[in-house]
Amino acid sequence: MVEPADWRHVTKVDPDKGMSEEKMRDIAVSGTDAVVVGGTQGVTREKVLSLLSSVDADVPVVVEPSNPASAVGAGDALLVPTVLNADTVDWVVGIHKEWARTEDVDWSRVVGEGYIVMNPDSAVGRLTGADTSLSPQEAAGYAEVADGLFDLPVVYVEYSGTFGDTEVIEAVADAVDDATVFYGGGVDGYDRAKEAARYADCIVVGDAVHEKGVDALRETVRGVDDARGV
Amino acid sequence: MVEPADWRHVTKVDPDKGMSEEKMRDIAVSGTDAVVVGGTQGVTREKVLSLLSSVDADVPVVVEPSNPASAVGAGDALLVPTVLNADTVDWVVGIHKEWARTEDVDWSRVVGEGYIVMNPDSAVGRLTGADTSLSPQEAAGYAEVADGLFDLPVVYVEYSGTFGDTEVIEAVADAVDDATVFYGGGVDGYDRAKEAARYADCIVVGDAVHEKGVDALRETVRGVDDARGV
Repeated sequence: MVEPADWRHVTKVDPDKGMSEEKMRDIAVSGTDAVVVGGTQGVTREKVLSLLSSVDADVPVVVEPSNPASAVGAGDALLVPTVLNADTVDWVVGIHKEWARTEDVDWSRVVGEGYIVMNPDSAVGRLTGADTSLSPQEAAGYAEVADGLFDLPVVYVEYSGTFGDTEVIEAVADAVDDATVFYGGGVDGYDRAKEAARYADCIVVGDAVHEKGVDALRETVRGVDDARGV
Repeated sequence: MVEPADWRHVTKVDPDKGMSEEKMRDIAVSGTDAVVVGGTQGVTREKVLSLLSSVDADVPVVVEPSNPASAVGAGDALLVPTVLNADTVDWVVGIHKEWARTEDVDWSRVVGEGYIVMNPDSAVGRLTGADTSLSPQEAAGYAEVADGLFDLPVVYVEYSGTFGDTEVIEAVADAVDDATVFYGGGVDGYDRAKEAARYADCIVVGDAVHEKGVDALRETVRGVDDARGV
């Protein structure tokens, strides 16, 4: 089983955007702790399997379906989001119930993630109708529920596409006892990686590797390392 | 900490209905494994504290607030429901987030319960707008989410006031790996206690003790014991 608690830097690759085999190999040795294959739109089994087949890495490669119905059994584990601040029950428990009803889920491969979606203009924000107007204290409240009531191993502050309010990240990190706090959104280089890593346990880099390449990714790894005094 | 996994029979006392000190003492030695103080309507701190103060029992006495905001720090633990099939996010995560935001919650005292509410005419059914038209497979899907994704220690099939569909209870019990399955609703004597105990791990008796008394409660304990060959 994968251990997200040990991760400090994660690279998220969007199968809808694609990634060359060479780049996937470079990512795997960039210093990142895990490769997450996932995205909100146009994620099909074929695209996910194609990406997974191109990785031959020592780092874990995990699949994160926005809807678990598009999940595949490949990869080292399945990260399954529940969007805590969604506006309908579908994204909290509904699609998960349907997934469990229609497939024979191997829960031992599932790592639950309590998402707090904070960017209303992101694909995930629009899709889930998330209440992104949360105060740091409200975000922290959701984080406590994810950690204390649901025992989710990961609490994920998702600003997808924009760099977040560090007060929110800090409040969430302070509220959580056991879960690992992921931060994602706008981490495009050394400075922002270092800044976000001051608060979150693990930084997720996604768009930057698609848009700027693996050199930029390595800079984010360096930022995280420096924030931790590695 | 209390261990719901060890419970086979639980007595639920509604603080809004009240219970004499003498009856509370009789309940505590009836053979029930725990006394749960909780109800959907009119539950105030004063009523809960009054009931708790009248119990001097070897069995655990726990508080189950329908809304955790009415929770008290008394009792041996706090059972906190999340209604998985509610029609709004409020009853799944919303009121819990507000609770965490406004109070300093001691999560080590909290036992999470994944409720599947099945009686549309019950107070909890009306309050939460639960989708009570679930097939056994859908109820089982929610149970898997509660058990596999959220790691809730208790999955609670709640028919509140009427005896349930044993196919639903059985499907839920079959779907769950780790959680303890509670069943509540219409258990008013020996036969129904024995029948429900064929499927669920733990039977909850509520109305019967208020309406029929402690003798009826003892009969339900005997029904559970016989179902288990004790």
